[in-house]
Amino acid sequence: MKTVEIDLGSRSYPIHIGSGLLTQSDWPSRLKNQQICIVTNETIAPLYLAQTKALFKDKTVIDVILPDGEKFKSLDTLALIFDGLIDAAFDRTCVLIALGGGVVGDITGYAAASYQRGVDFVQIPTTLLAQVDSSVGGKTGVNHPRGKNMIGAFHQPKAVITDLDILKTLPDREFSAGMAEVIKYGAIMDSTFLQWLDDNADALLDRDVSALQYAIARSCECKAQIVAEDELEGGRRALLNFGHTYGHALESLSNYSRWLHGEAVAIGMTLASEFSMALGGITAEAHQQLVEKLQKFNLPISADTDITSDSMIASMLRDKKSRDGNIRLVLLEGMGNAFLSDQYDRKMFTSHLEKVFAAD
Amino acid sequence: MKTVEIDLGSRSYPIHIGSGLLTQSDWPSRLKNQQICIVTNETIAPLYLAQTKALFKDKTVIDVILPDGEKFKSLDTLALIFDGLIDAAFDRTCVLIALGGGVVGDITGYAAASYQRGVDFVQIPTTLLAQVDSSVGGKTGVNHPRGKNMIGAFHQPKAVITDLDILKTLPDREFSAGMAEVIKYGAIMDSTFLQWLDDNADALLDRDVSALQYAIARSCECKAQIVAEDELEGGRRALLNFGHTYGHALESLSNYSRWLHGEAVAIGMTLASEFSMALGGITAEAHQQLVEKLQKFNLPISADTDITSDSMIASMLRDKKSRDGNIRLVLLEGMGNAFLSDQYDRKMFTSHLEKVFAAD
Repeated sequence: MKTVEIDLGSRSYPIHIGSGLLTQSDWPSRLKNQQICIVTNETIAPLYLAQTKALFKDKTVIDVILPDGEKFKSLDTLALIFDGLIDAAFDRTCVLIALGGGVVGDITGYAAASYQRGVDFVQIPTTLLAQVDSSVGGKTGVNHPRGKNMIGAFHQPKAVITDLDILKTLPDREFSAGMAEVIKYGAIMDSTFLQWLDDNADALLDRDVSALQYAIARSCECKAQIVAEDELEGGRRALLNFGHTYGHALESLSNYSRWLHGEAVAIGMTLASEFSMALGGITAEAHQQLVEKLQKFNLPISADTDITSDSMIASMLRDKKSRDGNIRLVLLEGMGNAFLSDQYDRKMFTSHLEKVFAAD
Repeated sequence: MKTVEIDLGSRSYPIHIGSGLLTQSDWPSRLKNQQICIVTNETIAPLYLAQTKALFKDKTVIDVILPDGEKFKSLDTLALIFDGLIDAAFDRTCVLIALGGGVVGDITGYAAASYQRGVDFVQIPTTLLAQVDSSVGGKTGVNHPRGKNMIGAFHQPKAVITDLDILKTLPDREFSAGMAEVIKYGAIMDSTFLQWLDDNADALLDRDVSALQYAIARSCECKAQIVAEDELEGGRRALLNFGHTYGHALESLSNYSRWLHGEAVAIGMTLASEFSMALGGITAEAHQQLVEKLQKFNLPISADTDITSDSMIASMLRDKKSRDGNIRLVLLEGMGNAFLSDQYDRKMFTSHLEKVFAAD
């Protein structure tokens, strides 16, 4: 087992990464909370709920099983968790355990941030994406019918338990979507890691435990380094959105039905890299290497042509990071070195999108 | 105008207390936010919404008018605020202004804590209770159908604007309910202030602006002192619950329909003081003086007899502050000196309630 310590002062916590953490580890006995609420969804419950509950003998354990899917990441679903906690008369010494992917983690984290104005929270992420992304940073929340993640809180978990065995049952497509975020960390801040991913692609695709442990730990370290510098997202943390401003627009314009989040981010990273190349920030060779890496992990690198450049721009302007009508982009100045900008050439930005996307 | 500075490090903020702050002050021009959402309710809107909106010329101002009443302090009502913010495409640089009493302040504060994971928040409390209680401490939230304030966040405002002129239109009964909390500050930590309240009772009951300014400022200072020592409610902050554990039980057992919160707290303080006297913490004379003060401000000092002592105990055990089956009480060791205890004589506690309330 490898442990990554997330250093946030009094809100610091460990991420434990290894095999067998859901069956034979001692972390459950170190949890002091007596009242335990496991929140999961209909898909994960049959696979892992029983063994997770079995970890907490001699404690009061309840579970809340949510419907599965991004469309249930809502205030209504959140209320199901509050109902369960109140029915069980859980007090502010309880802990909520999120057993699932990003949606379960985000809703459960926000429930923990809000129940009695804040209770403990432990994450057991069951997808690669959740293991490398939502396990670091403390972002929790739900969607509004007209906007993703519009409602939420910053709330750090007490611990993250990343059991690599769970990845063995993860569908290939979801595994690849998680790899998009792993590749992102290399692209924005660690070209050595990017090279390591190249060298170890086959082992990762085979779900080799030691390769996964390294890739996940390094991803968490990268994200942790940025988050520690900017916990409440004033500046540098925005670098984590490399590919995401484009990606969010693609997801939104396709009603979140065509691509997994990681897939949209892969296309978004391709676009951001291509635009960086157009601006002279990276070489054509560096861009090509990034694209090949995404392809090696079976990720899409281009979108449909039925999305127009105008609709892309309109959608990107609605992004949470846009200010005063400026689309803030994360761009590359050399591979492994991202920066935030809204001072780029607007005409070049538009003409790049017009080249890639359909006209009206 | 008098300003009380609430010292909470990077979350510090001023409480401005004075006449005419809604009509002729310069605080609106000092707000940097361009997007302004005023949240109020159906009762307050006709009285003060237009003049509040008029303070923000040259800015984008929207309003959300909530139904009036504690029963609307719910997740459903909260969603109305999110709807308004999203419809107006407000981003994370916006500010929410709560124009109303405690319910409006609590819901709006929680909406501000949650919208895009946290935006600015200004309070314009329109009741004495909100001016001396919810304006300090950062507690925000909504009720669950089966529990008060079960869902929320700690979120400090950027400023509190307490316009004393608003109190001129406050109904007498609500004014008295606010005075219960004012008296509480004296009882738990400042016997000099308690004496001052005695000496200035007539001026206060006449809504004399300078007497009110002092009473509100001193109340805010008292609460601020305690909150600064214990922002997230680990220990000393519980002293603010003097009379509240009894009071919450009374409110809950009467379905929140018989007493205003401050009235229930007045009865609760009488009970807590009486029990403190029984334990030898205060003299009969000190107890009598507190009771007379409550009466002078037209507050109730005893409950119905149709509530049983058993139901009181059961309800008090459900209080958020109860742990492991112990009812934690705020008791007095001398007037002006409260302490927290769950080590008192249980039999005396029960027999005191049996004496005051009906048997089964």
